[in-house]
Amino acid sequence: MRAHAFTHHHNPLPGNMTFAPNSASIRRRSNLSVRMALKEDGPSIAVVGVTGAVGQEFLSVLSDRDFPYRSIRMLASKRSAGKQLTFEDKDYVIEELKHDSFNGIDIALFSAGGSISKEFGPAAVDSGSIVIDNSSAFRMEEKVPLVIPEVNPDAMSHIKLRSGKGALIANPNCSTIICLMAATPLHRHSKVLRMVVSTYQAASGAGAAAMEELELQTREVLEGKQPTCNIFKQQYAFNLFSHNAPVLSNGYNEEEMKLVKETRKIWNDNNVKVTATCIRVPVMRAHAESVNLQFEKPLDEDMARDILKKAAGVVVIDDRSSNHFPTPLEVSNKDDVAVGRIRRDLSQDGNHGLDIFVCGDQIRKGAALNAIQIAELLL
Amino acid sequence: MRAHAFTHHHNPLPGNMTFAPNSASIRRRSNLSVRMALKEDGPSIAVVGVTGAVGQEFLSVLSDRDFPYRSIRMLASKRSAGKQLTFEDKDYVIEELKHDSFNGIDIALFSAGGSISKEFGPAAVDSGSIVIDNSSAFRMEEKVPLVIPEVNPDAMSHIKLRSGKGALIANPNCSTIICLMAATPLHRHSKVLRMVVSTYQAASGAGAAAMEELELQTREVLEGKQPTCNIFKQQYAFNLFSHNAPVLSNGYNEEEMKLVKETRKIWNDNNVKVTATCIRVPVMRAHAESVNLQFEKPLDEDMARDILKKAAGVVVIDDRSSNHFPTPLEVSNKDDVAVGRIRRDLSQDGNHGLDIFVCGDQIRKGAALNAIQIAELLL
Repeated sequence: MRAHAFTHHHNPLPGNMTFAPNSASIRRRSNLSVRMALKEDGPSIAVVGVTGAVGQEFLSVLSDRDFPYRSIRMLASKRSAGKQLTFEDKDYVIEELKHDSFNGIDIALFSAGGSISKEFGPAAVDSGSIVIDNSSAFRMEEKVPLVIPEVNPDAMSHIKLRSGKGALIANPNCSTIICLMAATPLHRHSKVLRMVVSTYQAASGAGAAAMEELELQTREVLEGKQPTCNIFKQQYAFNLFSHNAPVLSNGYNEEEMKLVKETRKIWNDNNVKVTATCIRVPVMRAHAESVNLQFEKPLDEDMARDILKKAAGVVVIDDRSSNHFPTPLEVSNKDDVAVGRIRRDLSQDGNHGLDIFVCGDQIRKGAALNAIQIAELLL
Repeated sequence: MRAHAFTHHHNPLPGNMTFAPNSASIRRRSNLSVRMALKEDGPSIAVVGVTGAVGQEFLSVLSDRDFPYRSIRMLASKRSAGKQLTFEDKDYVIEELKHDSFNGIDIALFSAGGSISKEFGPAAVDSGSIVIDNSSAFRMEEKVPLVIPEVNPDAMSHIKLRSGKGALIANPNCSTIICLMAATPLHRHSKVLRMVVSTYQAASGAGAAAMEELELQTREVLEGKQPTCNIFKQQYAFNLFSHNAPVLSNGYNEEEMKLVKETRKIWNDNNVKVTATCIRVPVMRAHAESVNLQFEKPLDEDMARDILKKAAGVVVIDDRSSNHFPTPLEVSNKDDVAVGRIRRDLSQDGNHGLDIFVCGDQIRKGAALNAIQIAELLL
């Protein structure tokens, strides 16, 4: 896995506040790029929801990682069909997503919401495509692997490209991916019995329009105006609120239950105890999580730091003397999940507990990058 | 205790983003007010650090609560000495804080930082004043009561006004006050064994200049400029970071250790286990806290909700069907601490655990209001 180096200095704006790249920015990027991953022996790809925040990031990541492909089909809703898109020096016409869109497609990357996945995912599988789905539609289905490549690649080892058989693979929820990227290397060393997670989630999880609304609201508030509330029902600028996902009868919202249930499935451990409180904070595109861990066997903080430093896809930022720890801004547009504030939990006996603080780019490792890494496992 | 009613609708700006009132706003407020708490039989008061965010809020709260006083002395650093200040229709000249500033003062309200408290607090006590100190200077001294009036008023019951003897009373840290306002009513019903806290702290905790910097940075970032970092060493706008308090050798920062140690002292329970992760978020003046509780005996969520609804200084905002829970904006400039997301913790057996989410105005209940309530206990 090729990770971007952490620069450890500020990379303020507009770079870090950039919304998902639009077609124009992709065109600009490809003109500057000498990369060309168009290869006759690569798989044929379809991107479903190509105009969305994650869809656009799929393209960026494919390009950044020189993912080999024979052809690529750009799919979106009827509204976007017919529009032009330039990617890696080649012009594409966005096509309307239909049930027969997947003829001849080896890998279909879906990020257009759960209902689109439910309607078109099975059709793609029937066409022989391997669907990598970023929605929650199939994540908890028993036969669908739920994969973080650094964590549980074996869960999808039975799925082979060009076997003539289609398949579904689910991308976990962003909060789960970011949490488990940090918790799993520790869990492998000393089993995690219980995890208490509080999240600090960015606007990007609710899509490009939510990021735009946060920016608009912030401008309005600074001008003394009433903030526009279209995506969220309340003021987001200079505020925070409990995650907007529906609240279930047990009092948890769906976002929190994803952390609870997906962790069990990914770790293949129905006994792991997880609780989560998911909060949206006025940050653009990277999530932060405060994670309290309880281990079966002792794991001291020095050992934990060493384990995390060696973990793939993880960078440790844990400088106590200069008070330098992970921030959402510092991981924005980066591949690695950053971990810091690694310390023995004073509220647990001996070395049975640790507190850590984790940040990861929600659009990248929390969505598009993880999906492309799943696709790489198929090559 | 007279609490402001929660309106439950948006009260956007500039009201909610107002920085600590300056002299001009105090003047305006007093002209509109018919209140006049100047009373011959009231105590004589000194406000130390009257030009700061909390100092200004001391005045607002004294006025809002009709706190009776015979006289009031406005004290600040040499820099502000000589400036005029109008309060409740009366003009005052700000005086330079000196060791002899406390002659004839019954109650001295301090909020000018720990070093000022350390230097001038003992002098005030020697003059026979009862010092209510908002700094951390004396909080952990064994003989100094650390008081939240709704929680442990008895800790200061031996201190009497006009006894001829001065005394020190410490105001707890803002995060501790806000957390314990919600946790204590539950703790009284079923002893809390362990508490895992993650905070979402506002700019106001670092003073009025920090609030101004957050606003300035936000404007700069929206204009594509490099953000000004004077108060904090990193970008705060559209970002969040581990609390700026110094990090100790155990990996906790001082803010976190305040929650750990002050809880033990206020609850008079050296066995209560507390861990905390303190994070600054780009919010103006109210803190939020995600609190995971472990109880000795079962406490179900319905009982917990009932207990909190009846608790003084607490309001329950816990509407699952409309996804309406406490937010920093909704508690800004309010007296009550708001609690919501009250639910059985799925990661603990039976009803031994609860998750809650708490919001409170950092300047008001987290500082000035709590101090004035302590002063009210002396009347």
